[in-house]
Amino acid sequence: MRPTPSSSAASDHATLADRYAATRRLTVDLVAPLTEEDCCVQSQTCSSPTKWHLGHTTWFFERFVVRDALGLEPYSDAFEYVFNSYYNTIGNRQPRARRGVLTRPGLGEVLAYRDVVDDRVERALREGSLPEQAREVVELGLNHEQQHQELLLMDIKHLFSCNPLGVEYASDASAEGAAISGMGWVAFDEGVRPIGQDLGTDPRVYDNEGPGHRVFLEAFELADRLVTNRDYLEFVLDNGYERPEHWLDLGWQAVQANGWQAPLYWSERDGDWLEFTLSGWSALELDTPVAHLSLYEADAYARWAGARLPTECELEAAWDRRACDGAMLEDRVFHPSASGSGETGVRQLMGDLWEWTSSSYGPYPGYAPPPGAVGEYNGKFMCNQYVLRGGCCVTPRAHLRPTYRNFYEPEARWAFSGVRLARSV
Amino acid sequence: MRPTPSSSAASDHATLADRYAATRRLTVDLVAPLTEEDCCVQSQTCSSPTKWHLGHTTWFFERFVVRDALGLEPYSDAFEYVFNSYYNTIGNRQPRARRGVLTRPGLGEVLAYRDVVDDRVERALREGSLPEQAREVVELGLNHEQQHQELLLMDIKHLFSCNPLGVEYASDASAEGAAISGMGWVAFDEGVRPIGQDLGTDPRVYDNEGPGHRVFLEAFELADRLVTNRDYLEFVLDNGYERPEHWLDLGWQAVQANGWQAPLYWSERDGDWLEFTLSGWSALELDTPVAHLSLYEADAYARWAGARLPTECELEAAWDRRACDGAMLEDRVFHPSASGSGETGVRQLMGDLWEWTSSSYGPYPGYAPPPGAVGEYNGKFMCNQYVLRGGCCVTPRAHLRPTYRNFYEPEARWAFSGVRLARSV
Amino acid sequence: MRPTPSSSAASDHATLADRYAATRRLTVDLVAPLTEEDCCVQSQTCSSPTKWHLGHTTWFFERFVVRDALGLEPYSDAFEYVFNSYYNTIGNRQPRARRGVLTRPGLGEVLAYRDVVDDRVERALREGSLPEQAREVVELGLNHEQQHQELLLMDIKHLFSCNPLGVEYASDASAEGAAISGMGWVAFDEGVRPIGQDLGTDPRVYDNEGPGHRVFLEAFELADRLVTNRDYLEFVLDNGYERPEHWLDLGWQAVQANGWQAPLYWSERDGDWLEFTLSGWSALELDTPVAHLSLYEADAYARWAGARLPTECELEAAWDRRACDGAMLEDRVFHPSASGSGETGVRQLMGDLWEWTSSSYGPYPGYAPPPGAVGEYNGKFMCNQYVLRGGCCVTPRAHLRPTYRNFYEPEARWAFSGVRLARSV
Amino acid sequence: MRPTPSSSAASDHATLADRYAATRRLTVDLVAPLTEEDCCVQSQTCSSPTKWHLGHTTWFFERFVVRDALGLEPYSDAFEYVFNSYYNTIGNRQPRARRGVLTRPGLGEVLAYRDVVDDRVERALREGSLPEQAREVVELGLNHEQQHQELLLMDIKHLFSCNPLGVEYASDASAEGAAISGMGWVAFDEGVRPIGQDLGTDPRVYDNEGPGHRVFLEAFELADRLVTNRDYLEFVLDNGYERPEHWLDLGWQAVQANGWQAPLYWSERDGDWLEFTLSGWSALELDTPVAHLSLYEADAYARWAGARLPTECELEAAWDRRACDGAMLEDRVFHPSASGSGETGVRQLMGDLWEWTSSSYGPYPGYAPPPGAVGEYNGKFMCNQYVLRGGCCVTPRAHLRPTYRNFYEPEARWAFSGVRLARSV
Repeated sequence: MRPTPSSSAASDHATLADRYAATRRLTVDLVAPLTEEDCCVQSQTCSSPTKWHLGHTTWFFERFVVRDALGLEPYSDAFEYVFNSYYNTIGNRQPRARRGVLTRPGLGEVLAYRDVVDDRVERALREGSLPEQAREVVELGLNHEQQHQELLLMDIKHLFSCNPLGVEYASDASAEGAAISGMGWVAFDEGVRPIGQDLGTDPRVYDNEGPGHRVFLEAFELADRLVTNRDYLEFVLDNGYERPEHWLDLGWQAVQANGWQAPLYWSERDGDWLEFTLSGWSALELDTPVAHLSLYEADAYARWAGARLPTECELEAAWDRRACDGAMLEDRVFHPSASGSGETGVRQLMGDLWEWTSSSYGPYPGYAPPPGAVGEYNGKFMCNQYVLRGGCCVTPRAHLRPTYRNFYEPEARWAFSGVRLARSV
Repeated sequence: MRPTPSSSAASDHATLADRYAATRRLTVDLVAPLTEEDCCVQSQTCSSPTKWHLGHTTWFFERFVVRDALGLEPYSDAFEYVFNSYYNTIGNRQPRARRGVLTRPGLGEVLAYRDVVDDRVERALREGSLPEQAREVVELGLNHEQQHQELLLMDIKHLFSCNPLGVEYASDASAEGAAISGMGWVAFDEGVRPIGQDLGTDPRVYDNEGPGHRVFLEAFELADRLVTNRDYLEFVLDNGYERPEHWLDLGWQAVQANGWQAPLYWSERDGDWLEFTLSGWSALELDTPVAHLSLYEADAYARWAGARLPTECELEAAWDRRACDGAMLEDRVFHPSASGSGETGVRQLMGDLWEWTSSSYGPYPGYAPPPGAVGEYNGKFMCNQYVLRGGCCVTPRAHLRPTYRNFYEPEARWAFSGVRLARSV
Repeated sequence: MRPTPSSSAASDHATLADRYAATRRLTVDLVAPLTEEDCCVQSQTCSSPTKWHLGHTTWFFERFVVRDALGLEPYSDAFEYVFNSYYNTIGNRQPRARRGVLTRPGLGEVLAYRDVVDDRVERALREGSLPEQAREVVELGLNHEQQHQELLLMDIKHLFSCNPLGVEYASDASAEGAAISGMGWVAFDEGVRPIGQDLGTDPRVYDNEGPGHRVFLEAFELADRLVTNRDYLEFVLDNGYERPEHWLDLGWQAVQANGWQAPLYWSERDGDWLEFTLSGWSALELDTPVAHLSLYEADAYARWAGARLPTECELEAAWDRRACDGAMLEDRVFHPSASGSGETGVRQLMGDLWEWTSSSYGPYPGYAPPPGAVGEYNGKFMCNQYVLRGGCCVTPRAHLRPTYRNFYEPEARWAFSGVRLARSV
Repeated sequence: MRPTPSSSAASDHATLADRYAATRRLTVDLVAPLTEEDCCVQSQTCSSPTKWHLGHTTWFFERFVVRDALGLEPYSDAFEYVFNSYYNTIGNRQPRARRGVLTRPGLGEVLAYRDVVDDRVERALREGSLPEQAREVVELGLNHEQQHQELLLMDIKHLFSCNPLGVEYASDASAEGAAISGMGWVAFDEGVRPIGQDLGTDPRVYDNEGPGHRVFLEAFELADRLVTNRDYLEFVLDNGYERPEHWLDLGWQAVQANGWQAPLYWSERDGDWLEFTLSGWSALELDTPVAHLSLYEADAYARWAGARLPTECELEAAWDRRACDGAMLEDRVFHPSASGSGETGVRQLMGDLWEWTSSSYGPYPGYAPPPGAVGEYNGKFMCNQYVLRGGCCVTPRAHLRPTYRNFYEPEARWAFSGVRLARSV
């Protein structure tokens, strides 16, 4: 368990150009262990090829900075089509499910594209020729780049898990297992709490985190650590996947339709449980938090355990009682770690695993999407998805903040998602 | 527009046996215009045959009162299988999508089954031989029966709409069109508001309406009437169904996948707009509220109109500013009516159409489903559905209350659903 | 086992009007055991409601005789839409998969429609006012009516089999089980054989039976009786449904996708095998021919048994060695019967069960569909279907002839289909 | 148009080892223009990645020669799983639809695997240490390799066609367009004809080409050349894709379900027709044979043109009237060519395009699959596929023979398939 660092002070002092360069370089660094073939393939519709992540994040800067703000010509009309993700405002695009057929441009060409765009953006930043609004878009683009760093690793993990040969992304860097105690509870009083924050104060904040507003919370309690593989295995062995009474109706349908019997990357061979990680297959570590759950599984587990999922506001309110951050991308373990037991407070609230909440992803009071293409970034997805909070072991530290709202469909399992229990008083 | 009646005082004086008899009789009365064939067919997976509604509501009383409380033998083992809806706790059952293949038992046999069960329940009620808990289940069963009265009419409307011959359920009973004014706004202050109510105070209250708790509402405004066909037609003619920028991402997918171009029961022939009602096809009445929208359409309309959907708490908070109730089942018009214009307040809040909210259907703080099969009634559906409030023209008046939460998937269109605009201040 | 009658001499002497009346009356007679509800429902996409069969066969005469030949107005424009099956030449129609939503017109109205059309056709026939070509269409219509008599019973059998209450169409009329011998073989020499017949000689002949032409057959042998339930059960108990080596690739896919473990209407309960028949559920009779197989099952069985399926030409060539006809519709047993053992020859070639062949349904040399709507009757289905020969226990005797080609998709199982083994020498 | 060579005499003189080396080398040569990324991706379920073709063809020799005949250990257990195609007899395997997720083993590893296996096989061949039966399997493996050479190019063409950037496999090598005349007809008399050939005489012959047997053919005529783009464009412009009367029922369903408006690789932009070839997009050449048709389109065209498709026996019988072979793989034009007009006879019967027939792919009289895994090669696919004859511009010349039966599902369009008209007399 790593100690909690003193906020993101470092980044405050860095210039935007430096942060731009560092963030962009990190993405390319993450690709180093991969072959050209690894970078090209799409293993499921909701994943993208690594190469596409590299191209799309570049396109974001080209489109909204190089073209809209600097007024330069596009690097390639074809790339405009190929690397647009979901912006209807901008135009037609390669269908999401078909990103994997793009064997051309090759990885080398995409990296060259990155160089050209980076050169243009960095020069403009260092020359100070970008207007204030464009600098805000650069901030948004870096935020966006960080999201794709995480997605890239999620997608590679899925791809490698599909390979019967057992591929490793990184050698196993997990530290000696930390001690772990039984689950404790942290109590919170009822009251009106501020939630979210307005756009503009912190340039990194997404539109969906605001406006800042007030929410009344009834008294509640949160578990002081994440649910572990040991905890969850008990549910599995209690035939949790065979008893409909624990499940939401849609959850039970998903269990039956997909034949789920355990979390996504678990596998049972002759009575032993294995887990696939970015370091390949290994025996299930019992003290480690259980990862790669759908909302349905998180909810069923909580019900079985006599508790419930927290709401997103409860987790946000808990932020000032946070203790012992979990692993994040900079730790380069690419896997959650045991929570430790020394400190009092809500451990692992930041890092290790995104925590499912019972909160449907929707607009805050007074929310309106920004005008233009950037307005498609968040608002149009506010239906049938659920909020996760706190970040995970493949999220860059600088990307996280108490008001950050991540979201996935309730059946999604390929994110680094886990579960923290809550209960009403 | 009908005046607002003085609460449900009448029902307070009725004995439970009388209400039982009246409620059960009403269901059979609603079937009078139908042929045996009409009663047998299932026109879509989410609908049920009329005959199945008749049998299932009877099974509910048989199962939870006649058998569990009175200890009598089942009328028929086969009916136990055939008329269970979704209670895993009770056992296997006819698959939902296959309720329409049950040409046997015939309508006559199902009506005979109703008579036997009614006879047993009524006798027990009049003799006073039912324990308190069983009387509560009878209340739940009447609530349940009323839901199915509405469902039965929704399902028949869908069935008849599929028939190229143009079938009528009832002759057109709509009153002379009321005058209708432009849309006004009613303002509400910020503050902590009580929401929901605890089980037990009112025997009719469902578990999902509680526990009573507090919610902080930022200041908001509600439209004083529902959106009309005239309003909505403007959206349609402005190519609302062809412009992705108005739609949620899932909504736009639904528009394209289903080829939606207008609300469910609208049809355009040579430039004229027709609407299918339970009185058959007729010219679209422009002052009538627009009905049979999905959440996606309600949301897209609101966005286009520069407003938003209300939350369920906002609509509940508005209940004491309610004016001019809309049509309900007892009015036997089977269609929403124009809102009138005379009174100040939130018109049509009760009746006419269920109003979509932006609130995902989820548990209130401290909610836990009741033990046993009855616990499957509501709780397991709390995912990927959205709340509607206020009741509609085919809801029995006694079924409605300010805390009542109806819910459907966002793509559902066959309920009598409409839209009221809201905005933040 | 019934003796072989001396051809269809009787029908030769009947006038066309008499045959028209008798054939049309028989259809209505077959409906007598059914309720209105039974007649309305469609239990699978490839089935039609009984009421639709009644209406469609009537529409055929109305469309092609009453309107085209007599020039009378349509009985109802709506019926024109509702009862057209698949004639693109004629116009739009109720989609096949949605025939079951037509609760109106009711059964009574459809029977009234029959009466009106029958009255017009019969009068014209008795008056002799129909031109020769129209009389040929009447013949075609009677042929068509007979096909629908069989389809109606196939479809009712499927509908009733879906009902958990166990519905019977007819009381069990099966005769005392005939004696049955081991399987013998009948040998045929190589040589050029005439196959099919030209249109025009026999007015009942369909276009797909011609032109008459020559085919060279290598020497072959046919089993002297159909495969029985006893034979087939041996295959099932030898894990026939679990061993891919017996199956066509598409067959094995169908086994896995549908979870097939036995013929369509078999069911195993606690080690006992039951069979659903039009007389309800009963113990599997071992001497009776195995029925309701897909082509895949017929083929897998033959492979397992060291034999193969016959070609359609081999079965046609065998017709003059035919012995001991099986049950047909007039026998009113609605089920195949044991083959007997007394006679030498190819038993059950006519009646009992349609026999799957390895012959894809295609055009004979020189075949061209007739002009106009009637040309859509057969020709456009000549792809990915396989020929069955010989007729079954619910086929009217007069409908059958040596050159008759029935056809279904290879996965179809709801026809009365069985298997006869063949082998090359 | 190339002159007809004097049979395959050259290959008779080559030793098997030489032919093995040459055939295996050709496959690798074909891959030269591709990147690693091109070789890894699967663009549709029925296609395979290039790398998989390279591995699977190698596995075939390893499995059936190196292991079964030479008794050596497998190169890799994982490859055994990964490169098995569809042999149930051998064991589990990578699902066909998921061949594209195998980014490992990389292209280099697969080529190394080829080298190892080739070394073992060639050494055994040159040492003469292989028994006769194993030498037959080598012949089968070379036949199999040639099939995959063609498949590899079909699959790459499809992959490249999906790329919006317009990728080329080869520069345009098409010769100056040959002159082309109107369509002539070649007449054939009725009579009994020998069809197919027995296994064993020619080591290259597949099991499905035998046994040799006799077929009676009625008199018929064949067009002296393939249908051209000019011919077919006329059908398109006559609204051929909008008129159901030209189509088989399943064909019309395919047109509507897939939105077909022209052959697979045609595209219309502002009134001009383009065609995608292995040399990229270019203007449609009108004299070139129309390619990449489904059976449905071939059949609809023939019907529209007042003709019909030939049967496979008719095309086999025409082989001795063959003139002017079309392009084959060795010509390295990768595209069909205009037929020329000089010679009398059936031009392009061999090469240019596979010719759809109306013959369903089924067993010849007396056919039985060989024992063991090799028996799965052909026999189990004999259902719902149709025969094509003659070879195409990406088929190796040595792979073709008059009795050769290719087969695809009727909706398949990515093969180099065309149409020759036939008619009965």
